[in-house]
Amino acid sequence: MPDFTIVVGSRHWSSWSMRPWLVLRRTGASYDEVVLQHRTPAGKAEAVALGPTGQVPLLIDRRTQVPIKVWDSLAICEYLAECYPDAKLWPVDPVARATARSISAEMHAGFRPMRMALDMDLFALKPGVGLDEPGVAADIARIDSIFRDCRTAYGTDGPYLFGQFTIADAMFAPVISRFRTYEPALSDLAGEYVATMLGDAGFTAWEDAARREL
Amino acid sequence: MPDFTIVVGSRHWSSWSMRPWLVLRRTGASYDEVVLQHRTPAGKAEAVALGPTGQVPLLIDRRTQVPIKVWDSLAICEYLAECYPDAKLWPVDPVARATARSISAEMHAGFRPMRMALDMDLFALKPGVGLDEPGVAADIARIDSIFRDCRTAYGTDGPYLFGQFTIADAMFAPVISRFRTYEPALSDLAGEYVATMLGDAGFTAWEDAARREL
Repeated sequence: MPDFTIVVGSRHWSSWSMRPWLVLRRTGASYDEVVLQHRTPAGKAEAVALGPTGQVPLLIDRRTQVPIKVWDSLAICEYLAECYPDAKLWPVDPVARATARSISAEMHAGFRPMRMALDMDLFALKPGVGLDEPGVAADIARIDSIFRDCRTAYGTDGPYLFGQFTIADAMFAPVISRFRTYEPALSDLAGEYVATMLGDAGFTAWEDAARREL
Repeated sequence: MPDFTIVVGSRHWSSWSMRPWLVLRRTGASYDEVVLQHRTPAGKAEAVALGPTGQVPLLIDRRTQVPIKVWDSLAICEYLAECYPDAKLWPVDPVARATARSISAEMHAGFRPMRMALDMDLFALKPGVGLDEPGVAADIARIDSIFRDCRTAYGTDGPYLFGQFTIADAMFAPVISRFRTYEPALSDLAGEYVATMLGDAGFTAWEDAARREL
């Protein structure tokens, strides 16, 4: 039996699920998956049966006699970072790590106008749609400045926000999909980072699995 | 100069600020405070000048030559947990810690219907107001079950969610204030925990400081 089970929603829509899935993949641990069509009554009922919140994502750690359930995208990422220190899921440098945690938490609870106006719809192309909704431009400008600032201050040893791939990249991965779909204007540095993430092996593996879902 | 500066919003309304302030207080570190009337244009302008998001709370760590800025309530809590391992800001037991992180993250990004319908208003008493808004009853029921489950499974060595005070208690502290204000029906176990938190030395210190703010 694999060490972990990860319960995710439909890969086309579940931005919350994408994040810990990308991080789990980076640990190198063995895992299997349960994919729920979480927007249907049947999928919702399955989610309620599996975990305490009735929501996706959910991680089940089977390495212990009594399996451990961890829920919520960010908590799963922190849990995996603790279990797999060698995977360096957070930046090693304390200042970079503090910044990575700050922007990850900012993403976790924030950017609601953008999240509501620009649904994640993995393969859709809807350039311009929703960009003039209230608050969306400010959210996009803030995300652009996060990408620029991280790439400038911390991005020297690799193409990700903090050089090497970290949880912060996973937390912003659904935004990458949204930017491809809705095509907001971005700075050059932010645009380069978006291109990096669109070519990331984890990101494309999520897309491949989404294609198989249809 | 103290080791930290914590920037908070008005203590009457800023549920986000209350959380890391309670945690910082528990570390025993020296700190000073900047209190912004963050809902006024002047307070907002000050917040924009201080930190990258223009929001409260913000932690400034002055122990290094270049001060480190950490923002967002949950990221500040994680940062302090890392800086002060002896303060045991997360539960020591790995399973309890995974659960504490899960419910803290669930609170951080969730319960929006309750948060929108039941504003934190520290000393107000408005029994019953807002409780019939859509989604509020379900949010309160879920929080009640979190309190019951944690107290039952982990609460043996103290009166807090995981026995001793942890970040999870701080994350739910604004809910404690809301429950006092709006008085939803709660289970006995949840009610006992609410009473514990209302008598917590950190919680009452926040109230005392709020009274001085007026």
